[in-house]
Amino acid sequence: MSLIIKGGTVVNADRSFRADVYCEDGVIKAVGTDLDTPGDAEVIDAGGQYVMPGGIDPHTHMQLPFMGTVASEDFETGTAAAMAGGTTMIIDFVIPDPEENLMAAYRKWRGWAEKACADYAFHVAVTWWDDSVHADMGTLVREEGVNSFKHFMAYKGAIMAEDEVLYNSFTRALELGAIPTVHAENGELVWQLQRKLLEMGITGPEAHPLSRPPEAEGEAANRAIRLAQVIGCPLYIVHVSCRQALEEIARAQAEGSRVFGEVLAGHLLIDESVYRHPDFDVAAAHVMSPPFRAKEHQAALWKGLQSGTLQTTGTDHCCFCAPQKAMGKDDFSLIPNGTGGVEDRMSVLWTHGVTTGRLTVEEFVAVTSTNAAKIFNIYPRKGWVGEGADADITVWDPAATKTISVKTHHQKVDYNIFEGMEITGLASHTVANGKLTWANGDLRAVRGAGSYVKRPAFQPVFHALEKIARANVPTAVARS
Amino acid sequence: MSLIIKGGTVVNADRSFRADVYCEDGVIKAVGTDLDTPGDAEVIDAGGQYVMPGGIDPHTHMQLPFMGTVASEDFETGTAAAMAGGTTMIIDFVIPDPEENLMAAYRKWRGWAEKACADYAFHVAVTWWDDSVHADMGTLVREEGVNSFKHFMAYKGAIMAEDEVLYNSFTRALELGAIPTVHAENGELVWQLQRKLLEMGITGPEAHPLSRPPEAEGEAANRAIRLAQVIGCPLYIVHVSCRQALEEIARAQAEGSRVFGEVLAGHLLIDESVYRHPDFDVAAAHVMSPPFRAKEHQAALWKGLQSGTLQTTGTDHCCFCAPQKAMGKDDFSLIPNGTGGVEDRMSVLWTHGVTTGRLTVEEFVAVTSTNAAKIFNIYPRKGWVGEGADADITVWDPAATKTISVKTHHQKVDYNIFEGMEITGLASHTVANGKLTWANGDLRAVRGAGSYVKRPAFQPVFHALEKIARANVPTAVARS
Amino acid sequence: MSLIIKGGTVVNADRSFRADVYCEDGVIKAVGTDLDTPGDAEVIDAGGQYVMPGGIDPHTHMQLPFMGTVASEDFETGTAAAMAGGTTMIIDFVIPDPEENLMAAYRKWRGWAEKACADYAFHVAVTWWDDSVHADMGTLVREEGVNSFKHFMAYKGAIMAEDEVLYNSFTRALELGAIPTVHAENGELVWQLQRKLLEMGITGPEAHPLSRPPEAEGEAANRAIRLAQVIGCPLYIVHVSCRQALEEIARAQAEGSRVFGEVLAGHLLIDESVYRHPDFDVAAAHVMSPPFRAKEHQAALWKGLQSGTLQTTGTDHCCFCAPQKAMGKDDFSLIPNGTGGVEDRMSVLWTHGVTTGRLTVEEFVAVTSTNAAKIFNIYPRKGWVGEGADADITVWDPAATKTISVKTHHQKVDYNIFEGMEITGLASHTVANGKLTWANGDLRAVRGAGSYVKRPAFQPVFHALEKIARANVPTAVARS
Amino acid sequence: MSLIIKGGTVVNADRSFRADVYCEDGVIKAVGTDLDTPGDAEVIDAGGQYVMPGGIDPHTHMQLPFMGTVASEDFETGTAAAMAGGTTMIIDFVIPDPEENLMAAYRKWRGWAEKACADYAFHVAVTWWDDSVHADMGTLVREEGVNSFKHFMAYKGAIMAEDEVLYNSFTRALELGAIPTVHAENGELVWQLQRKLLEMGITGPEAHPLSRPPEAEGEAANRAIRLAQVIGCPLYIVHVSCRQALEEIARAQAEGSRVFGEVLAGHLLIDESVYRHPDFDVAAAHVMSPPFRAKEHQAALWKGLQSGTLQTTGTDHCCFCAPQKAMGKDDFSLIPNGTGGVEDRMSVLWTHGVTTGRLTVEEFVAVTSTNAAKIFNIYPRKGWVGEGADADITVWDPAATKTISVKTHHQKVDYNIFEGMEITGLASHTVANGKLTWANGDLRAVRGAGSYVKRPAFQPVFHALEKIARANVPTAVARS
Repeated sequence: MSLIIKGGTVVNADRSFRADVYCEDGVIKAVGTDLDTPGDAEVIDAGGQYVMPGGIDPHTHMQLPFMGTVASEDFETGTAAAMAGGTTMIIDFVIPDPEENLMAAYRKWRGWAEKACADYAFHVAVTWWDDSVHADMGTLVREEGVNSFKHFMAYKGAIMAEDEVLYNSFTRALELGAIPTVHAENGELVWQLQRKLLEMGITGPEAHPLSRPPEAEGEAANRAIRLAQVIGCPLYIVHVSCRQALEEIARAQAEGSRVFGEVLAGHLLIDESVYRHPDFDVAAAHVMSPPFRAKEHQAALWKGLQSGTLQTTGTDHCCFCAPQKAMGKDDFSLIPNGTGGVEDRMSVLWTHGVTTGRLTVEEFVAVTSTNAAKIFNIYPRKGWVGEGADADITVWDPAATKTISVKTHHQKVDYNIFEGMEITGLASHTVANGKLTWANGDLRAVRGAGSYVKRPAFQPVFHALEKIARANVPTAVARS
Repeated sequence: MSLIIKGGTVVNADRSFRADVYCEDGVIKAVGTDLDTPGDAEVIDAGGQYVMPGGIDPHTHMQLPFMGTVASEDFETGTAAAMAGGTTMIIDFVIPDPEENLMAAYRKWRGWAEKACADYAFHVAVTWWDDSVHADMGTLVREEGVNSFKHFMAYKGAIMAEDEVLYNSFTRALELGAIPTVHAENGELVWQLQRKLLEMGITGPEAHPLSRPPEAEGEAANRAIRLAQVIGCPLYIVHVSCRQALEEIARAQAEGSRVFGEVLAGHLLIDESVYRHPDFDVAAAHVMSPPFRAKEHQAALWKGLQSGTLQTTGTDHCCFCAPQKAMGKDDFSLIPNGTGGVEDRMSVLWTHGVTTGRLTVEEFVAVTSTNAAKIFNIYPRKGWVGEGADADITVWDPAATKTISVKTHHQKVDYNIFEGMEITGLASHTVANGKLTWANGDLRAVRGAGSYVKRPAFQPVFHALEKIARANVPTAVARS
Repeated sequence: MSLIIKGGTVVNADRSFRADVYCEDGVIKAVGTDLDTPGDAEVIDAGGQYVMPGGIDPHTHMQLPFMGTVASEDFETGTAAAMAGGTTMIIDFVIPDPEENLMAAYRKWRGWAEKACADYAFHVAVTWWDDSVHADMGTLVREEGVNSFKHFMAYKGAIMAEDEVLYNSFTRALELGAIPTVHAENGELVWQLQRKLLEMGITGPEAHPLSRPPEAEGEAANRAIRLAQVIGCPLYIVHVSCRQALEEIARAQAEGSRVFGEVLAGHLLIDESVYRHPDFDVAAAHVMSPPFRAKEHQAALWKGLQSGTLQTTGTDHCCFCAPQKAMGKDDFSLIPNGTGGVEDRMSVLWTHGVTTGRLTVEEFVAVTSTNAAKIFNIYPRKGWVGEGADADITVWDPAATKTISVKTHHQKVDYNIFEGMEITGLASHTVANGKLTWANGDLRAVRGAGSYVKRPAFQPVFHALEKIARANVPTAVARS
Repeated sequence: MSLIIKGGTVVNADRSFRADVYCEDGVIKAVGTDLDTPGDAEVIDAGGQYVMPGGIDPHTHMQLPFMGTVASEDFETGTAAAMAGGTTMIIDFVIPDPEENLMAAYRKWRGWAEKACADYAFHVAVTWWDDSVHADMGTLVREEGVNSFKHFMAYKGAIMAEDEVLYNSFTRALELGAIPTVHAENGELVWQLQRKLLEMGITGPEAHPLSRPPEAEGEAANRAIRLAQVIGCPLYIVHVSCRQALEEIARAQAEGSRVFGEVLAGHLLIDESVYRHPDFDVAAAHVMSPPFRAKEHQAALWKGLQSGTLQTTGTDHCCFCAPQKAMGKDDFSLIPNGTGGVEDRMSVLWTHGVTTGRLTVEEFVAVTSTNAAKIFNIYPRKGWVGEGADADITVWDPAATKTISVKTHHQKVDYNIFEGMEITGLASHTVANGKLTWANGDLRAVRGAGSYVKRPAFQPVFHALEKIARANVPTAVARS
């Protein structure tokens, strides 16, 4: 089974160049000018187009059981929709309930994901702590190829991790060579504000952003960063949505810390006015956390992406349909949190990022694919168009246009937060594991064709305190 | 009983001018040039000296029961020592244990303080939460003249306030017109680091600063600020000791928030190398929290004071003698936290602040007296030399010198953290409530002469969320 | 001639209190409750009103010869209009042309100002440098009561001061005990952009803000600050209009520098869209420098005022009528720069500052009067309601309302940049030098009743380099 | 002529992997595991070592005529010494005198460089402005492969570029697709401080840092950045030596600007105390501009390098021997500015950057080679070990040690600023253009073996003002 992409401009994060790309057995075998075309190879004409590493969405929740219901998009439909938009890999989340065994949860999610059409991996959430969690983290890193753990600082009374859990988990991640990630919102504050708003009789979706102010996110981002700095571990902050959190990341980086930030396509482009839409369904369809923010935050996030303070773009794809959203008709805090986007991320980014001059083509590749691959240690297998890499490729037509609509999207959800947006720049072809899965509007995704991607651990390092303490030991020794 | 201070330069926070000051019945009756001297008035010659409002130390802990012992300095000896250094009022702390009734604790401390030689007031700590705390805060503000509440974000397992307590107490303070104050250190992190250091076998005082890194303080400062910003209340951060916390305050102020910062004389001048002193007693004598820091933080704190980011100076005067400190001989985390300073604060500030050109004379008055009086709403009764104000006055001799020593100080503690420091600038005379209590080395403090100072509430204001929510109510109304 | 203001609330920068105010011979003789009313005293009923120090506008240009014409508002009409708005003193500018003798220019302006109805002082501009300028600065400080010098970093080819002039003048100001002030815009950049825009055929007022971007102001602010830091002198930056310049000031303050910032009422409230008004006259009426800015800058400036980063508010009152503005009909760079505002400043600040909760009443007094008096060293003679101060007082009715309009204003200019703004909070009475000059709409200003106010020098200090160098002299000595 | 490096770990900026590297005809022909070794190929055993792109020093001045003398190190000796330290390319500077024809100067430098042993390119300085300069910049970019222009903001009275020159040159560079670079120090301020210090009698090298305070560098950095932001061009700031300049770059990046920063090995490691050395020769040997700084700046620079705020490392290699330095015996401002370092840069960076954990191995490659190649648009020909790249390779032995000394270095200068520094990590072999030029201490550099490297222009873009103005044209059109 072979395939050749001819006549395009290969774009990697570091440079662009004219070359053909030849794939065989799911792997890129050659990148070069004027490659020979084997007789049986499928030929894709990429003339006038870019040949880029397939997108990696580092933040999705397929078929997530959440807030009393289950996300409408499953691993099959979700990864198929992703490929229609040029994304060939997702990193989803295993989220054990408190007291739930991590390995059991992990195996449950692995089972659900077997039907995925594209490759996938899992961040595993640490929502509680005991010796079994400590042990299971070791098993997950060493045997299962998990190198990132997620912590929800929000959702009090459910999956919220208190500082004690954060400390223990970050410390354990460090010794295992894994990277902690956080959903940064102060859950106590959110909970209190929810109660207060409901008491005030503000029960609709317009209360959602009021209950989750940017200060709550900035607070949690800083808290996680300070813990990470003291422990000496790296940190990845998911869905940075506001200036306050962004500033914390920038400051930590300037202090020399290895802190990374992810931004969602939605947070870059949608503002909080949606929550005041007179139609509950529309307003509720936008309910996700952190919420969409005032416009000034969008300007800040774009600067964050341009400056490299933020490295990756995701979607937090987590779909709930109107009947599900209606669970919170009388109480906004019960509206299932989540929106779609895995299909639209790359086009939206290209339209508002590349065609506006904010990002170069290479930077687009970096923020949609390569950086995620590097941070989660699957580069250059993923995130690179080069000999030996997985044949996950997007042929990108910079001139193609369309209007985003729920009527035409492939996502299994009844609303599209980018509805009506005019797009320039689309995936004309998507190649996943060496097979053409999307070709000029023809979606050829195959149930179960995707595989679980193991991600190697990083080099474990010392707890920061140990380094500092060693310098002080002489005193202790001398005095005793 | 009257007294006249003649020939000096009156210094208030806003300006200096040559004037005599006449006091009668504990109150300043006249400030003017060439005042008549009543026949029976005691005359103080202030020629060549400054006549300033008596110092206010907004942070002391006299006879505090803490960590299994009781501070050696009581309200009598402590306020006497204060007056030997030009300080005529202290604001001490009522610290109920968790579950302890606030009013009961308050009355206990009021009883202890009756022997004070100088005026005093109390911040009351909120270390837990239930309806009685809510009610008692109301009683304290409305009936007892308490307008500030303290929250310890450190001391896990003892008096640490979790976010839930902070939220409830800040909210309650706001509606009562009181100001929350915080000891900003992440108690969870400190507790974990203490455990880790002990496990590593680092058990001496050199572990103390390692267990309380600047990041832990910066984290907590930011957390308290973000909560205050969302709630819409002011905030006062005690004993800011490091660049990280200072930066949080500066940022909050730039964002328009009413956040105040206090710095201790010790943190301005002493660095963390003391904890590595080979003599345990010396090292332990410096154990207080936050700890003394690396030198760069001292430079930052001075800038903070110069720029107005920090408004007040205190001491956290809380004395424990060597036998008490020895409780932590084998485990640094058991060393009672605290050092002295109430006597030395003003001289130390003058020597390193005014004579170096960092602060003007008026700024010195602001940071040692007037700002505390304003923030805690007892200005101009305190913190001002003017007609009608309390006759709490320091006559300051800018040319006087001495060397600080435990051998000559009046504080009831066996160590002085400023031992050997050469001082320029001393109180030649101290007048408290119109009586001369310190005159050229003669300490005339009188047990019980001090009074409790009621501090009126501020104007209560709305919770920030309510303001924001009102702007969104139309949506809710329209949709329903 | 005496006057008593009864029943009001006196507001000073440090506090408010109920008191009557008795004035005689142009001076406040008594401030107290229930003062006796001498039989011949004029009585002003201030019940329900605030009694505040008269406003000080630290930035006006009455009858300025500029860009080929002369400002329409002269010292008589301008100070009269000021008093209708509660402002009782202005600080105007002497602006010598390059090569013009400073003393000659100073005397010319003193002559023009003799007809002023309210008190006034002068900043003197240093637009060039030679030995005579050096000498005249000394004369002005020592004999004429000038303690501030102005430097235009813009207006290339006219009055722009290059770095060499700035260095020499700042250094000289330091040794004299005067404070340098700057108009911070990079004149070279402005000049180049003007040329470029004209070449591009963009000749109307819409080009004005394009030719003076915020970056040009931020650049110059930082340059002046860095020079001042190296020299060791204080610095006052006039009409800070944008985030960029504000940030420079905040940073310098955080670094411990004594840098002050002034903001204009117009920059707080008007945005740059005015320059795209279809009517040339309207657009041109707003042409001043720095220009009005995008809305985000106004939010930043308010925060700057709230946080104390900016200390004073002015107007840059400099009026040109439509026929004068028309000089730049075909070339925006020829439109005379300037707008009015001296009459409206305080009401506009009260409406948008105090009634919105951004500023307290005391802070309002600080930023409209007291801070300017302190910075320019005429406090407490000015900027204070207290015994012995000049009887310059505004009785402020917080409930009074009006709509600002060119039809009703007293300013001698045919346009009002605040046209149509609904105001809450007005001066009901203005007292200047002990005489009632404005009473409920009746303007009683008297030509020539104002006096020139001498401003004493500050204490001269050493050049920063000298301080640093002294620490290094030993090396030089040792080596030689 | 072929060569194979076997058994090492190839390190590029994006990743490391075990591979052999085969070079032929000056180019890398293959990178892979277990490559065949042609019979005639020279074999280098890289077991246990890293195989990295040869270093690029983007800042050298070989045989520079400067301050009345000529640098002792010429293009032959300098590039030979570079290769002894693993550096295989330099970017030097053509510096025309004011009024000197750019092309003539360029040709002069090209002539001098013909004897270089390693590859080289030239930044061309713009020290003055007229139509010929405008034209020559075009010629240089379009015909000569120059894509960067240098501007000295210091050296008043000699080569200093005023704002007018900066504006014109930056604008021209933008339209040509070249990047402006600046030496950021305020030349006027430096000149004034030099005069003042000499007047004060401080004439020795200890005056050098006093005459060039960090504020002067921060000022100029910000000025250049603000100009670049307004014009819309990228900017590269050479030899960033202090916190102030670093902060300006970080801020600009956060604002979305493409501003780059270079740091010198010396500024990372040497502090200003050297200027107070009692031996004039030692002190003078360190005289370069900007000067070495107080220690706090070195900590800041390392953070800048770690965080990516600074991208490149150079040396400003510009050698003058003691007799030359003695020209400033009686006047520090006459000491020829410059020190060596081209040989030591990589080892010093490795020792203090990689072995300390500040930088990863990949980051080391980025900051010593790849980033410079990318910024100056010669990547991946340079700065990359990959098929098709120039065979400029360093085989790096991380375990090798030595002590730096003037006695053993290959640089043609009589002093080494790193004298006595113990180094871990050395180039065991250097390959330049496919030839082994350094092998375990044997320097085989060949005069004239290096070539001039043309650097292609970037895509020209529009002046920022034009973009903004187009949005406003409708107003202009509508009004007319």
